[in-house]
Amino acid sequence: MSAIQQNIEAASASYSASFTKGDLELPPARKYLVLTCMDARIDPAQAFGIELGDAHVIRNAGASALEALRSIIISQQLLGTNEIVLVKHTGCGMLTFNNDDAFDIVERNLGQAAVEELKESKIDFLPFPDLEQAVYNDVAFLKASTLVPDSVEISGWIYEVETGRTNRVV
Amino acid sequence: MSAIQQNIEAASASYSASFTKGDLELPPARKYLVLTCMDARIDPAQAFGIELGDAHVIRNAGASALEALRSIIISQQLLGTNEIVLVKHTGCGMLTFNNDDAFDIVERNLGQAAVEELKESKIDFLPFPDLEQAVYNDVAFLKASTLVPDSVEISGWIYEVETGRTNRVV
Repeated sequence: MSAIQQNIEAASASYSASFTKGDLELPPARKYLVLTCMDARIDPAQAFGIELGDAHVIRNAGASALEALRSIIISQQLLGTNEIVLVKHTGCGMLTFNNDDAFDIVERNLGQAAVEELKESKIDFLPFPDLEQAVYNDVAFLKASTLVPDSVEISGWIYEVETGRTNRVV
Repeated sequence: MSAIQQNIEAASASYSASFTKGDLELPPARKYLVLTCMDARIDPAQAFGIELGDAHVIRNAGASALEALRSIIISQQLLGTNEIVLVKHTGCGMLTFNNDDAFDIVERNLGQAAVEELKESKIDFLPFPDLEQAVYNDVAFLKASTLVPDSVEISGWIYEVETGRTNRVV
Protein backbone atom coordinates (compact mmCIF):
# COMPACT_ATOMS: atom_id res chain seq x y z
CA MET A 1 0.00 0.00 0.00
CA SER A 2 1.39 3.40 -0.98
CA ALA A 3 1.91 6.25 1.52
CA ILE A 4 -0.97 8.11 -0.17
CA GLN A 5 -3.28 5.13 0.28
CA GLN A 6 -2.25 4.79 3.94
CA ASN A 7 -3.01 8.48 4.39
CA ILE A 8 -6.56 8.00 3.04
CA GLU A 9 -7.19 5.05 5.36
CA ALA A 10 -6.04 7.08 8.36
CA ALA A 11 -8.08 10.14 7.33
CA SER A 12 -11.13 7.96 6.75
CA ALA A 13 -10.91 6.36 10.20
CA SER A 14 -10.65 9.76 11.86
CA TYR A 15 -13.32 11.50 9.72
CA SER A 16 -15.90 8.72 10.04
CA ALA A 17 -15.37 8.45 13.80
CA SER A 18 -16.95 11.87 14.33
CA PHE A 19 -19.22 11.91 11.25
CA THR A 20 -22.78 13.11 11.91
CA LYS A 21 -24.06 14.00 8.41
CA GLY A 22 -25.23 10.57 7.22
CA ASP A 23 -28.79 11.69 6.47
CA LEU A 24 -28.19 14.35 3.82
CA GLU A 25 -30.28 14.12 0.64
CA LEU A 26 -28.83 13.38 -2.80
CA PRO A 27 -29.96 16.65 -4.50
CA PRO A 28 -27.91 19.65 -3.31
CA ALA A 29 -29.89 21.47 -0.60
CA ARG A 30 -29.04 24.96 -1.89
CA LYS A 31 -29.47 23.97 -5.55
CA TYR A 32 -26.21 25.36 -6.91
CA LEU A 33 -23.07 24.04 -8.48
CA VAL A 34 -19.53 25.31 -8.24
CA LEU A 35 -17.21 24.72 -11.20
CA THR A 36 -13.58 25.31 -10.31
CA CYS A 37 -10.06 24.11 -11.11
CA MET A 38 -8.45 20.87 -9.90
CA ASP A 39 -5.53 23.00 -8.63
CA ALA A 40 -4.05 21.64 -5.38
CA ARG A 41 -4.13 25.09 -3.77
CA ILE A 42 -7.93 25.41 -3.78
CA ASP A 43 -10.18 24.10 -0.98
CA PRO A 44 -13.65 24.97 -2.33
CA ALA A 45 -15.56 24.11 0.84
CA GLN A 46 -13.46 26.48 2.95
CA ALA A 47 -12.65 29.20 0.41
CA PHE A 48 -16.16 29.47 -1.05
CA GLY A 49 -18.15 28.60 2.09
CA ILE A 50 -19.84 25.40 0.90
CA GLU A 51 -21.55 23.42 3.66
CA LEU A 52 -21.69 19.64 3.22
CA GLY A 53 -24.80 18.73 1.22
CA ASP A 54 -25.38 22.21 -0.20
CA ALA A 55 -23.78 22.22 -3.68
CA HIS A 56 -22.31 20.10 -6.43
CA VAL A 57 -18.60 20.76 -6.89
CA ILE A 58 -17.17 20.07 -10.34
CA ARG A 59 -13.39 20.38 -10.75
CA ASN A 60 -11.12 19.90 -13.75
CA ALA A 61 -8.01 21.39 -15.33
CA GLY A 62 -8.70 25.11 -15.66
CA ALA A 63 -12.36 24.97 -14.55
CA SER A 64 -13.28 24.22 -18.15
CA ALA A 65 -16.99 24.62 -18.86
CA LEU A 66 -16.60 22.48 -21.97
CA GLU A 67 -15.08 19.50 -20.13
CA ALA A 68 -17.74 19.92 -17.43
CA LEU A 69 -20.75 20.18 -19.76
CA ARG A 70 -21.93 16.60 -19.21
CA SER A 71 -21.77 17.03 -15.43
CA ILE A 72 -23.50 20.43 -15.54
CA ILE A 73 -26.44 18.98 -17.49
CA ILE A 74 -26.76 16.09 -15.01
CA SER A 75 -26.57 18.51 -12.08
CA GLN A 76 -29.32 20.72 -13.49
CA GLN A 77 -31.63 18.37 -15.34
CA LEU A 78 -31.47 15.33 -13.05
CA LEU A 79 -30.62 16.83 -9.67
CA GLY A 80 -32.32 20.20 -9.74
CA THR A 81 -29.56 22.83 -9.45
CA ASN A 82 -30.30 26.23 -10.97
CA GLU A 83 -27.24 28.38 -10.30
CA ILE A 84 -23.63 28.11 -11.51
CA VAL A 85 -20.64 29.64 -9.75
CA LEU A 86 -17.59 29.41 -12.02
CA VAL A 87 -14.22 30.08 -10.33
CA LYS A 88 -10.87 30.18 -12.12
CA HIS A 89 -7.73 31.25 -10.25
CA THR A 90 -4.45 33.13 -10.37
CA GLY A 91 -1.34 31.10 -11.18
CA CYS A 92 -3.33 28.49 -13.12
CA GLY A 93 -1.34 25.83 -14.98
CA MET A 94 -3.50 26.47 -18.06
CA LEU A 95 -1.74 29.85 -18.45
CA THR A 96 1.65 28.15 -18.80
CA PHE A 97 1.43 26.06 -21.99
CA ASN A 98 -0.36 25.76 -25.32
CA ASN A 99 -1.87 22.76 -27.11
CA ASP A 100 1.22 22.19 -29.28
CA ASP A 101 3.45 22.07 -26.18
CA ALA A 102 1.13 19.55 -24.56
CA PHE A 103 0.96 17.31 -27.63
CA ASP A 104 4.77 17.40 -27.90
CA ILE A 105 5.11 16.39 -24.24
CA VAL A 106 2.63 13.53 -24.65
CA GLU A 107 4.51 12.28 -27.72
CA ARG A 108 7.89 12.49 -25.98
CA ASN A 109 6.72 10.85 -22.73
CA LEU A 110 4.12 8.37 -23.96
CA GLY A 111 4.85 7.75 -27.63
CA GLN A 112 2.95 7.84 -30.89
CA ALA A 113 0.15 5.45 -29.77
CA ALA A 114 -0.78 7.92 -27.04
CA VAL A 115 -0.89 10.80 -29.53
CA GLU A 116 -3.23 8.71 -31.71
CA GLU A 117 -5.50 7.94 -28.72
CA LEU A 118 -5.52 11.65 -27.92
CA LYS A 119 -6.61 12.53 -31.46
CA GLU A 120 -9.27 9.80 -31.52
CA SER A 121 -10.65 11.13 -28.23
CA LYS A 122 -10.68 14.62 -29.84
CA ILE A 123 -9.04 16.01 -26.71
CA ASP A 124 -8.21 19.71 -26.71
CA PHE A 125 -6.27 20.71 -23.60
CA LEU A 126 -8.05 24.09 -23.64
CA PRO A 127 -5.23 26.22 -22.24
CA PHE A 128 -5.86 29.98 -22.03
CA PRO A 129 -3.44 32.94 -22.25
CA ASP A 130 -5.59 35.47 -20.31
CA LEU A 131 -7.25 34.56 -17.01
CA GLU A 132 -10.00 37.19 -16.85
CA GLN A 133 -10.88 36.69 -20.51
CA ALA A 134 -11.12 32.94 -19.88
CA VAL A 135 -13.72 33.57 -17.15
CA TYR A 136 -15.76 35.75 -19.53
CA ASN A 137 -15.44 33.18 -22.31
CA ASP A 138 -16.61 30.24 -20.22
CA VAL A 139 -19.54 32.18 -18.77
CA ALA A 140 -20.49 33.25 -22.31
CA PHE A 141 -20.20 29.65 -23.53
CA LEU A 142 -22.61 28.46 -20.81
CA LYS A 143 -25.05 31.33 -21.45
CA ALA A 144 -25.06 30.58 -25.19
CA SER A 145 -25.56 26.82 -24.81
CA THR A 146 -29.06 25.49 -25.42
CA LEU A 147 -28.16 22.90 -22.78
CA VAL A 148 -28.15 25.51 -20.00
CA PRO A 149 -31.59 27.17 -19.63
CA ASP A 150 -31.76 30.98 -19.52
CA SER A 151 -33.28 30.76 -16.04
CA VAL A 152 -29.94 29.54 -14.60
CA GLU A 153 -28.03 32.26 -12.72
CA ILE A 154 -24.34 32.23 -13.75
CA SER A 155 -21.49 34.21 -12.17
CA GLY A 156 -17.74 34.14 -12.87
CA TRP A 157 -15.03 34.65 -10.26
CA ILE A 158 -11.25 34.56 -9.74
CA TYR A 159 -9.70 32.95 -6.65
CA GLU A 160 -6.32 34.37 -5.64
CA VAL A 161 -4.01 31.56 -4.54
CA GLU A 162 -1.72 34.19 -3.02
CA THR A 163 -4.31 35.73 -0.67
CA GLY A 164 -7.17 33.24 -0.35
CA ARG A 165 -9.60 35.86 -1.71
CA THR A 166 -12.30 35.21 -4.31
CA ASN A 167 -13.33 38.19 -6.43
CA ARG A 168 -16.26 38.41 -8.81
CA VAL A 169 -15.48 39.14 -12.47
CA VAL A 170 -18.85 38.78 -14.19
CA MET B 1 -26.61 39.62 -6.09
CA SER B 2 -28.00 36.17 -5.29
CA ALA B 3 -27.91 34.66 -1.78
CA ILE B 4 -25.34 32.15 -3.05
CA GLN B 5 -23.11 34.95 -4.35
CA GLN B 6 -23.43 36.83 -1.04
CA ASN B 7 -22.45 33.65 0.75
CA ILE B 8 -19.25 33.36 -1.33
CA GLU B 9 -18.30 36.98 -0.63
CA ALA B 10 -18.78 36.46 3.11
CA ALA B 11 -16.83 33.17 3.08
CA SER B 12 -14.04 34.77 1.05
CA ALA B 13 -13.67 37.67 3.48
CA SER B 14 -13.46 35.31 6.42
CA TYR B 15 -11.18 32.71 4.75
CA SER B 16 -8.71 35.26 3.36
CA ALA B 17 -8.51 37.12 6.69
CA SER B 18 -6.72 34.18 8.30
CA PHE B 19 -5.08 32.73 5.15
CA THR B 20 -1.42 31.76 5.55
CA LYS B 21 -0.80 29.43 2.57
CA GLY B 22 -0.04 31.97 -0.15
CA ASP B 23 3.36 30.50 -1.02
CA LEU B 24 2.38 26.99 -2.15
CA GLU B 25 3.81 25.78 -5.47
CA LEU B 26 1.67 25.06 -8.54
CA PRO B 27 2.61 21.33 -8.88
CA PRO B 28 0.96 19.20 -6.17
CA ALA B 29 3.50 18.62 -3.38
CA ARG B 30 2.58 14.95 -2.88
CA LYS B 31 2.25 14.27 -6.63
CA TYR B 32 -1.15 12.59 -6.62
CA LEU B 33 -4.59 13.26 -7.97
CA VAL B 34 -7.96 12.36 -6.53
CA LEU B 35 -10.83 11.75 -8.95
CA THR B 36 -14.20 11.75 -7.23
CA CYS B 37 -17.84 12.65 -7.75
CA MET B 38 -19.34 16.16 -7.74
CA ASP B 39 -21.87 14.90 -5.14
CA ALA B 40 -22.74 17.56 -2.56
CA ARG B 41 -22.21 15.11 0.32
CA ILE B 42 -18.47 14.66 -0.30
CA ASP B 43 -15.79 16.93 1.18
CA PRO B 44 -12.61 15.42 -0.31
CA ALA B 45 -10.16 17.45 1.77
CA GLN B 46 -11.70 16.28 5.05
CA ALA B 47 -12.86 12.79 4.10
CA PHE B 48 -9.69 11.77 2.24
CA GLY B 49 -7.18 13.81 4.27
CA ILE B 50 -5.89 16.12 1.55
CA GLU B 51 -3.77 19.01 2.81
CA LEU B 52 -3.87 22.24 0.82
CA GLY B 53 -1.24 22.09 -1.94
CA ASP B 54 -0.80 18.32 -1.85
CA ALA B 55 -3.04 16.90 -4.61
CA HIS B 56 -5.12 17.72 -7.66
CA VAL B 57 -8.81 17.10 -7.08
CA ILE B 58 -10.91 16.33 -10.15
CA ARG B 59 -14.67 16.04 -9.66
CA ASN B 60 -17.50 15.31 -12.08
CA ALA B 61 -20.80 13.43 -12.23
CA GLY B 62 -20.01 9.88 -11.08
CA ALA B 63 -16.22 10.32 -10.87
CA SER B 64 -16.04 9.45 -14.56
CA ALA B 65 -12.53 8.63 -15.75
CA LEU B 66 -13.62 9.27 -19.33
CA GLU B 67 -14.87 12.81 -18.66
CA ALA B 68 -11.72 13.45 -16.61
CA LEU B 69 -9.21 12.10 -19.14
CA ARG B 70 -8.10 15.53 -20.39
CA SER B 71 -7.52 16.74 -16.82
CA ILE B 72 -5.71 13.54 -15.83
CA ILE B 73 -3.26 13.91 -18.73
CA ILE B 74 -2.59 17.54 -17.82
CA SER B 75 -2.10 16.60 -14.16
CA GLN B 76 0.42 13.89 -15.02
CA GLN B 77 2.23 15.15 -18.09
CA LEU B 78 2.38 18.86 -17.31
CA LEU B 79 2.26 18.97 -13.51
CA GLY B 80 4.07 15.81 -12.48
CA THR B 81 1.52 13.68 -10.60
CA ASN B 82 2.09 9.92 -10.65
CA GLU B 83 -0.68 8.38 -8.55
CA ILE B 84 -4.45 8.28 -9.05
CA VAL B 85 -6.98 7.76 -6.26
CA LEU B 86 -10.42 7.14 -7.78
CA VAL B 87 -13.36 7.39 -5.35
CA LYS B 88 -16.98 6.69 -6.25
CA HIS B 89 -19.66 6.64 -3.52
CA THR B 90 -22.83 5.04 -2.21
CA GLY B 91 -26.12 6.67 -3.18
CA CYS B 92 -24.66 8.12 -6.39
CA GLY B 93 -27.07 9.84 -8.77
CA MET B 94 -25.52 7.86 -11.64
CA LEU B 95 -27.17 4.72 -10.22
CA THR B 96 -30.64 6.28 -10.59
CA PHE B 97 -31.14 6.79 -14.34
CA ASN B 98 -30.04 5.58 -17.77
CA ASN B 99 -29.04 7.47 -20.91
CA ASP B 100 -32.52 7.20 -22.47
CA ASP B 101 -34.11 8.72 -19.34
CA ALA B 102 -31.62 11.58 -19.42
CA PHE B 103 -32.14 12.32 -23.12
CA ASP B 104 -35.94 12.29 -22.58
CA ILE B 105 -35.61 14.76 -19.69
CA VAL B 106 -33.36 17.07 -21.74
CA GLU B 107 -35.86 16.99 -24.62
CA ARG B 108 -38.84 17.67 -22.35
CA ASN B 109 -37.12 20.48 -20.39
CA LEU B 110 -34.92 22.09 -23.03
CA GLY B 111 -36.38 21.12 -26.41
CA GLN B 112 -35.13 19.59 -29.61
CA ALA B 113 -32.29 22.10 -30.19
CA ALA B 114 -30.72 20.99 -26.89
CA VAL B 115 -30.98 17.33 -27.90
CA GLU B 116 -29.21 18.19 -31.16
CA GLU B 117 -26.44 20.04 -29.28
CA LEU B 118 -26.10 17.02 -27.01
CA LYS B 119 -25.68 14.69 -29.98
CA GLU B 120 -23.22 17.02 -31.71
CA SER B 121 -21.15 17.15 -28.51
CA LYS B 122 -21.27 13.31 -28.46
CA ILE B 123 -22.22 13.46 -24.79
CA ASP B 124 -22.87 10.14 -23.06
CA PHE B 125 -24.12 10.63 -19.51
CA LEU B 126 -22.24 7.48 -18.47
CA PRO B 127 -24.64 6.24 -15.77
CA PHE B 128 -23.83 2.90 -14.13
CA PRO B 129 -26.11 0.24 -12.61
CA ASP B 130 -23.52 -1.33 -10.25
CA LEU B 131 -21.30 0.80 -8.03
CA GLU B 132 -18.46 -1.61 -7.30
CA GLN B 133 -18.33 -2.74 -10.94
CA ALA B 134 -18.14 0.90 -12.01
CA VAL B 135 -15.03 1.37 -9.83
CA TYR B 136 -13.39 -1.68 -11.41
CA ASN B 137 -14.36 -0.51 -14.90
CA ASP B 138 -12.93 2.98 -14.52
CA VAL B 139 -9.68 1.71 -12.97
CA ALA B 140 -9.40 -0.80 -15.83
CA PHE B 141 -10.08 1.96 -18.38
CA LEU B 142 -7.24 4.07 -16.94
CA LYS B 143 -4.85 1.11 -16.78
CA ALA B 144 -5.60 0.21 -20.40
CA SER B 145 -5.20 3.74 -21.74
CA THR B 146 -1.94 4.54 -23.52
CA LEU B 147 -2.42 8.05 -22.10
CA VAL B 148 -1.77 6.85 -18.54
CA PRO B 149 1.73 5.37 -18.17
CA ASP B 150 2.08 1.96 -16.50
CA SER B 151 4.24 3.56 -13.81
CA VAL B 152 1.20 5.40 -12.40
CA GLU B 153 -0.20 3.82 -9.21
CA ILE B 154 -4.02 3.56 -9.42
CA SER B 155 -6.41 2.56 -6.64
CA GLY B 156 -10.23 2.48 -6.56
CA TRP B 157 -12.37 3.26 -3.50
CA ILE B 158 -15.98 3.72 -2.37
CA TYR B 159 -16.97 6.53 0.00
CA GLU B 160 -20.03 5.82 2.14
CA VAL B 161 -22.19 8.94 2.37
CA GLU B 162 -24.04 7.29 5.28
CA THR B 163 -20.98 6.76 7.51
CA GLY B 164 -18.21 9.04 6.19
CA ARG B 165 -15.99 5.97 5.62
CA THR B 166 -13.86 5.36 2.52
CA ASN B 167 -13.13 1.72 1.70
CA ARG B 168 -10.72 0.40 -0.87
CA VAL B 169 -12.15 -1.76 -3.67
CA VAL B 170 -9.20 -2.32 -6.00
